[in-house]
Amino acid sequence: MPQLQPRTMPGVMELLPRDQIAFQRMLDAIRAGYERFGFLPIETPVMEFTDILLTKSGGETERQVYFVQSTGNRLAGREADLALRFDLTVPLARYVAEHENELLFPFRRYQIQRVYRGESAQRGRFREFYQCDVDVIGKGELPLQFDAEIPAVIYQVFRTLDIGDFTIHVNNRKVMQGLMLELGLADAQLQTMVMREVDKLDKAGPGKVVAILCGEGFRLDRAVVDRLMDFVSLKADSNDGLLSRIAGLGIGNALFQEGLGELRQVTGMIRAQGVPDKNFTLNVSIARGLDYYTGTVYETLLDAHPEIGSICSGGRYDNLAGYYTDSHLPGVGISIGATRLFYQLKEAGLVRAAESTVQVLVACLDTSLATENLALATLLRQGGLNTEVYHGTLKFGKQLKYADRAGIRFAVIQGGDEVAKGTVTVKDLQRSEQFESSLAEAANAIRQRLQAT
Amino acid sequence: MPQLQPRTMPGVMELLPRDQIAFQRMLDAIRAGYERFGFLPIETPVMEFTDILLTKSGGETERQVYFVQSTGNRLAGREADLALRFDLTVPLARYVAEHENELLFPFRRYQIQRVYRGESAQRGRFREFYQCDVDVIGKGELPLQFDAEIPAVIYQVFRTLDIGDFTIHVNNRKVMQGLMLELGLADAQLQTMVMREVDKLDKAGPGKVVAILCGEGFRLDRAVVDRLMDFVSLKADSNDGLLSRIAGLGIGNALFQEGLGELRQVTGMIRAQGVPDKNFTLNVSIARGLDYYTGTVYETLLDAHPEIGSICSGGRYDNLAGYYTDSHLPGVGISIGATRLFYQLKEAGLVRAAESTVQVLVACLDTSLATENLALATLLRQGGLNTEVYHGTLKFGKQLKYADRAGIRFAVIQGGDEVAKGTVTVKDLQRSEQFESSLAEAANAIRQRLQAT
Repeated sequence: MPQLQPRTMPGVMELLPRDQIAFQRMLDAIRAGYERFGFLPIETPVMEFTDILLTKSGGETERQVYFVQSTGNRLAGREADLALRFDLTVPLARYVAEHENELLFPFRRYQIQRVYRGESAQRGRFREFYQCDVDVIGKGELPLQFDAEIPAVIYQVFRTLDIGDFTIHVNNRKVMQGLMLELGLADAQLQTMVMREVDKLDKAGPGKVVAILCGEGFRLDRAVVDRLMDFVSLKADSNDGLLSRIAGLGIGNALFQEGLGELRQVTGMIRAQGVPDKNFTLNVSIARGLDYYTGTVYETLLDAHPEIGSICSGGRYDNLAGYYTDSHLPGVGISIGATRLFYQLKEAGLVRAAESTVQVLVACLDTSLATENLALATLLRQGGLNTEVYHGTLKFGKQLKYADRAGIRFAVIQGGDEVAKGTVTVKDLQRSEQFESSLAEAANAIRQRLQAT
Repeated sequence: MPQLQPRTMPGVMELLPRDQIAFQRMLDAIRAGYERFGFLPIETPVMEFTDILLTKSGGETERQVYFVQSTGNRLAGREADLALRFDLTVPLARYVAEHENELLFPFRRYQIQRVYRGESAQRGRFREFYQCDVDVIGKGELPLQFDAEIPAVIYQVFRTLDIGDFTIHVNNRKVMQGLMLELGLADAQLQTMVMREVDKLDKAGPGKVVAILCGEGFRLDRAVVDRLMDFVSLKADSNDGLLSRIAGLGIGNALFQEGLGELRQVTGMIRAQGVPDKNFTLNVSIARGLDYYTGTVYETLLDAHPEIGSICSGGRYDNLAGYYTDSHLPGVGISIGATRLFYQLKEAGLVRAAESTVQVLVACLDTSLATENLALATLLRQGGLNTEVYHGTLKFGKQLKYADRAGIRFAVIQGGDEVAKGTVTVKDLQRSEQFESSLAEAANAIRQRLQAT
């Protein structure tokens, strides 16, 4: 038979089972964290109509879209009218607008699904990846308390994931925008472009950013640029210290003061939710390039791995679904790019292949006892243990090696004598111990050991 | 702003949150059932290269495929070389062949992902739907015990789903094939075509099937057709009774006898795993149209809703991945089409919108207590409760209505007096009761009530 090389497209993450289990546990932890804060699940189809999907996106995003065409459509020579989603925000906007009358507001939703981007193939860049989003959408208005809940969600999720110390950076775009107004930069588009440059500060360094803002494209006054740079370099030993410093600048602009007031309130409410100051820091240099955000913005960094960049970002936006509905739908939310995060944590040695979901292997000493082994496995499963039965002819020692390689902690064995006595031998491969147990007690004994670790 | 009608393509199932929760619980239960039997998770990319994907499929499937093209590829005028998977079997074959040297065999995998088919739009037909598959793949050989484990998996999963009584139908294709050999029908393709007709017996009725098999297309002897029809009509009061009847036919053909022997052994091993005879029945008329299956085959029917058809089907196959590897990889597995199943169970009134994942709503009596309410919610969350805080200005009664409509069971309230005393009022909306509790005890008290139901 002529054979094909089995292969997948570049830019996808396909895992072996033990890594898949580790990844699945990460997704489960994120889901549990989101549910703990009262977010509700939704899922949307992987495809959207192209007119819906491409409304918002500029040319660059459009170039990265995957178009989809059914066989029939293609044979008929029609243009593709479907495309794969490239984020979960556009589908959310469409969903909320489509189901507006059936939803309760404020609508808190989480969504954990894959998205697709035709990125150029490159190590660590993915064309298919999971996004894990939460958003709260208000109808007409959305109180500031929600801005303060988001860091508490982030704190909960990353503490559970147990991937080392992390810091949530919080800013409010109104502060920077107010400052620009104060400095005479009133044009909204110009403001966005300036913020986009400022956002590159970390990577490009201040010299380069100053040069660009004073140069050809922007032609800003050096004095204006210096005040911007002074502002985004503001630092203090504590969050309260930074709030004082910002207030101390004496900038009277109303938007600036509004932003500062929000930052102050949000800080207090983050603390009220038990997020320690060591895990969140006010940071006036966080701008988030997108003009989409209008107030509070978030980034999250691993203290020991700043090179990974933000592992969870988002912010407040003024109107979710203006393309599809007249309703005014302000929102606030964040996104975790789980595929990239998992990849990077693995590269950094922060996650390892998991222990198996399988807890027990029923070994096979004698193939004539197959039926007894199935009955034994049933007993263990009824006792709440994930159990695999080995049905082959490998020698016993090799079966134990198989269990070990597979990450299965316990092997349970019964030979003819044991069947007669109604007992089994249990090997704890993690601790290199073994014990005998009655059939009836085996599941309990193993469960206790699992719970003890 | 010019507006677009927010809409999704036909043939997808997009759910409101409470239905999504019910659906998610179904998927979780299936996953837990699969894991209980030692199956390991894998996920594959939604897209495969077209040459890989379309190897096996005939023209009909090909017409239903969704082709995928990146913007760059499309602009360059290249043909689409990617397509969305239409099942999880081809991706499994590719996965096993690609990772053969890194996997442990027998390889037990489960996979719960969406697949895509360009079906003509029709009520209850889906273009995007979840499949939940388990398969065990052997290398070289795969003992018969695995054929017996599959009905135990089905039994576990559907018992947990709690959707009424069900019966797993079990057959072995070797029996029917052996009979055909005995009757002189030796051509494999003819056998497959005959089985395909026999498989329509339930829907078409015996008269029509006989007419077709004796007519133009097949031209079989009436005597031969009668013996086939007699055979597939074989019934008995019990599984053992049916085994006796089959044996009593006195058919000497070796394949027939092999199939009968397997059926007998599988029956014994299904029982050894605690699956009651009332939940599985040997049924010689189950053929499964596909020529893919070579031994044991399964279908599962809801006793009270036969009109739904099989809700879980599968069987034993001889070689998984012949297109991609020389290794001989026999397997056995089943698939649950979860999207269609959920849809049909809803239509039949067997699932309802779930209680919310949110267990507690912290109500807002006084917006000046926002910070205290956030602290209260934190306490409840730390106590293990999924908690939402209401931050708006709805009147209290309307907040309770909101909770009720959202499927949230408990509302927790603190006014100024209660903040001073360190107490809260808890309303159990399901039981129309309320009680007071200290802040410290509230989470415990609510958890106990949740566990009591």
